[in-house]
Amino acid sequence: MADTIFSKILRGEVPCHKVYEDDLVLSFLDVGPISRGHTLVIPKEPAETLDGLSDESAAAIGRVLPRLCRAVMQATGAKAYNVLQNNGSDAHQAVMHVHFHIIPRYAERTSGAGLGVVWKPQEFDHAEGERLAERMSKLMPQ
Amino acid sequence: MADTIFSKILRGEVPCHKVYEDDLVLSFLDVGPISRGHTLVIPKEPAETLDGLSDESAAAIGRVLPRLCRAVMQATGAKAYNVLQNNGSDAHQAVMHVHFHIIPRYAERTSGAGLGVVWKPQEFDHAEGERLAERMSKLMPQ
Repeated sequence: MADTIFSKILRGEVPCHKVYEDDLVLSFLDVGPISRGHTLVIPKEPAETLDGLSDESAAAIGRVLPRLCRAVMQATGAKAYNVLQNNGSDAHQAVMHVHFHIIPRYAERTSGAGLGVVWKPQEFDHAEGERLAERMSKLMPQ
Repeated sequence: MADTIFSKILRGEVPCHKVYEDDLVLSFLDVGPISRGHTLVIPKEPAETLDGLSDESAAAIGRVLPRLCRAVMQATGAKAYNVLQNNGSDAHQAVMHVHFHIIPRYAERTSGAGLGVVWKPQEFDHAEGERLAERMSKLMPQ
């Protein structure tokens, strides 16, 4: 895996506004925020995308997300927020080290509104859905 | 917490195209998909937003996300994807029970392109960032 700005932050070579750290996880403010209090959560384990992350690191991030969300909301006063995690440059991933964004949503524009989402639902084909779900299910260790 | 379509799915009163289930987590296809293979992951624990979810349920979802992402990518052939989790109606939450979206991203439009993201970075104020990060950090049990 190539070196990224996050590897440099993890090694302490680049400073960050740290919010939380444990053995597996680091959280700090995004310095290119799309709203006030925009926070990142990353695994210390090097992995480019979520599908390449170990169960253990992914569980450690999951476990700390509710507490981080509460801290971000309480510190900023935001009442709504999005958690977003992008994988692949076609899906807007800019730094090739797994990261979760916690993005407060504000009504007023002065703090940045937050994440803009474009949502275009498609027709759902139940027969194809059945096949897809079965294929996915078979790929999952039960 | 009010009853939702997800509570009905969890109780087996409404069918779903199931992908995965364990003691704490259920995953199934979104029937209002924004791309082919759009998958939902929900906790069995009733919680409206991620900040209200227990560490245990959040860790259980985290743990299974990499495997689910691999299964979704392998079954659909998609090479990129977004994981999105919305909290509050101002942040596009439509069903008031915690849910993570796994949304494949396709180049071709025939399967639905996937998630549209509007990203407008703001100026970052380092002095305010320092104060915010310190406030958040104090709210986090270390």
